[in-house]
Amino acid sequence: MSGSGFWKTLETLSPDGSVPLRQALDEIPWNADGLIPAIAQQYDTKEVLMLAWMNREALQETLENGRVCYWSRSRQQLWRKGESSGQVQELREARFDCDGDTLLLLVDQTGPACHTGRRDCFYNLVQGDRLVVDKPVLIDPETLYK
Amino acid sequence: MSGSGFWKTLETLSPDGSVPLRQALDEIPWNADGLIPAIAQQYDTKEVLMLAWMNREALQETLENGRVCYWSRSRQQLWRKGESSGQVQELREARFDCDGDTLLLLVDQTGPACHTGRRDCFYNLVQGDRLVVDKPVLIDPETLYK
Repeated sequence: MSGSGFWKTLETLSPDGSVPLRQALDEIPWNADGLIPAIAQQYDTKEVLMLAWMNREALQETLENGRVCYWSRSRQQLWRKGESSGQVQELREARFDCDGDTLLLLVDQTGPACHTGRRDCFYNLVQGDRLVVDKPVLIDPETLYK
Repeated sequence: MSGSGFWKTLETLSPDGSVPLRQALDEIPWNADGLIPAIAQQYDTKEVLMLAWMNREALQETLENGRVCYWSRSRQQLWRKGESSGQVQELREARFDCDGDTLLLLVDQTGPACHTGRRDCFYNLVQGDRLVVDKPVLIDPETLYK
């Protein structure tokens, strides 16, 4: 948690009150790895597609280009979503939560968001004492990443 | 990222294929603090309400009771959502993502999810070079937490 006075001040702003974005970017309470989680939600259907991570560079690129760029923790590099699969995310809206440590990105996702070829990453459903895969693969990953 | 063989195996399960939940719980790639992020989404309207964190105990309690319990990082204790405000989250559905390191919880949220008294926590909208507060306070926090 941030506990930052900056985000506390925003809590009590009157509706439509605002602050400079640049200032907000300076007040993000990045985690120990310099990252915050970003939730990607399809802007029209409201499906939650995935959660990934951003560092400051990824966030700035995303806001400037309008195309979503994450930080890949496994590859330790900028991850321009769709750069190899073509399944890009156009940014429609970006929001910070109340303590500034999570992003919600409203996006327009081309095709599957998940590297498995499924529309979204949340296909593992808890059902009683089982975990059930309940969403279909739309495009074979071998086709996506060939 | 997990890179765990367990979650990789699930990627290629046939639709409606399943594994024991207990096994999945043993394979969650908790972060260094023993936590994973959990996104709470209102089950019918699909609003993304908040993101919070769970340890194994919080997750097990949530799955057993059907009422959402997080781990409070600021207070370092179990956080039974709504325990002081009355604004509880009834669990409708729980899902893991493709590498098992994020939860999506479909919930029925009573009243405001946000401690500021707003319906959800994502009221800070990026608009050009400003960050704009664009969602109203529904219940004064002093009333919520009195």
